[in-house]
Amino acid sequence: MITSSSNSQVKNIIQLNSKGKARREQDIFVVEGIRMFREAPRDRIVKAYVSEHFFQEEEHKRLLESCSYEVVEDRLFRTLSDTMTPQGILCLVKQYHYQMEELLRKEKPCIMVLENLQDPGNLGTIFRTAEGAGVSGILMNRGCVDIYNPKTIRSTMGAIYRMPFLYTDDLPRAVTGLKSREIPVFAAHLGGTLSYDETDYRNGCAFLIGNEGNGLTDETAVLADTYIRIPMEGQVESLNAGVAASLLMYEAYRQKRNS
Amino acid sequence: MITSSSNSQVKNIIQLNSKGKARREQDIFVVEGIRMFREAPRDRIVKAYVSEHFFQEEEHKRLLESCSYEVVEDRLFRTLSDTMTPQGILCLVKQYHYQMEELLRKEKPCIMVLENLQDPGNLGTIFRTAEGAGVSGILMNRGCVDIYNPKTIRSTMGAIYRMPFLYTDDLPRAVTGLKSREIPVFAAHLGGTLSYDETDYRNGCAFLIGNEGNGLTDETAVLADTYIRIPMEGQVESLNAGVAASLLMYEAYRQKRNS
Repeated sequence: MITSSSNSQVKNIIQLNSKGKARREQDIFVVEGIRMFREAPRDRIVKAYVSEHFFQEEEHKRLLESCSYEVVEDRLFRTLSDTMTPQGILCLVKQYHYQMEELLRKEKPCIMVLENLQDPGNLGTIFRTAEGAGVSGILMNRGCVDIYNPKTIRSTMGAIYRMPFLYTDDLPRAVTGLKSREIPVFAAHLGGTLSYDETDYRNGCAFLIGNEGNGLTDETAVLADTYIRIPMEGQVESLNAGVAASLLMYEAYRQKRNS
Repeated sequence: MITSSSNSQVKNIIQLNSKGKARREQDIFVVEGIRMFREAPRDRIVKAYVSEHFFQEEEHKRLLESCSYEVVEDRLFRTLSDTMTPQGILCLVKQYHYQMEELLRKEKPCIMVLENLQDPGNLGTIFRTAEGAGVSGILMNRGCVDIYNPKTIRSTMGAIYRMPFLYTDDLPRAVTGLKSREIPVFAAHLGGTLSYDETDYRNGCAFLIGNEGNGLTDETAVLADTYIRIPMEGQVESLNAGVAASLLMYEAYRQKRNS
């Protein structure tokens, strides 16, 4: 059992929770909670860590079968957790490295393109909704928050294991690539005249979603084939980026289901 | 200028930021940032507090005209702020006390009914989306997070000033009251057979939204006239509560716009 805060594994997990650079260098990320552990593909789990208390239950011991793990003293486990009420289990999981082809594997794909998205909860929620809406893949520029941030991972509710995604250094080039594959590109934009629910997404679609405060950069927005808008009453100038993305994904999904 | 952390106003603002009880007793809440200050109805602003740095700009001084305010030393102002990057202005605003009639003022109203919603960001986002979707009012039980929580206020993006809402001690009774006014009551529920976009909301609607982890209590769910479901692909069991609420509000709004 690990009991010392100077244990090298303990120090490393704390690093992995707080530093994207450490996660990248080791090519792993931290996943917390029993549900997220259950859903993790077994062949991607590098190692699990459980609290002494968690390990007392027989059912929990069975959960760990065929898995490399360490038991950590309860008080020390709390320092490893990114949550206020730790469930007593976390694991290190291998990062994903998708190719563009894996994002486009479906016929008439629906692709989310995210630029400079900053809120970890928003990004995780978009992954979660994207899986629900049958989105094919998520393309992000490097200005987006790290998907492997513990808060983001939590809000994906497991979609991180199943939704193909890619960070790109050159978002405009990637969007141009989508266009050359004849995927229509839509931008939610204040300059849009077509309502998002009057537009046909049944031939596939890529939705460009910009930063929470500033929207899309001009460089990216100009690449859209069509500017669409989400109608709004009252004095609302824009919706939360996660909400706007969700409305678009579910509208595309609605059309697909009804076609 | 206020320079001491033992100043009674400084101590009180810190209390108001962290304690719902203090906010209730004084019947006020704290609003931060220049945009939220601009949008605040003048007759509700009790007092404004600005940082020394903020107060140096002439434009900012004009903003404070006809408003009671205090200048606070920069370093001290940061301790009053709930954000990482304070904008240098906050104000105390009188709480709202709506009557049920104000939530129902529109013909064929759309009412959101929230039970035990725990995430401050989710609640604020629902207020923001609700204003955008032309929702008439928001009804919450006491188990919901405090709308006057600083994080919630921030995520409303100003909708707090415009969206009628009510906390009730007896949610089932309030829902029964909506039914007696012939407002159809819908619950997003795993037991739902009708898809949310195959249901007619044009005669008005009340949507029941439950807790993030546990959904609606049986006591409340049983009051719904119709159980609806949001279709989901993949292994997704549910959507984020704010996203689910947004999809329902915007579907009702879409039907209203197209009717």
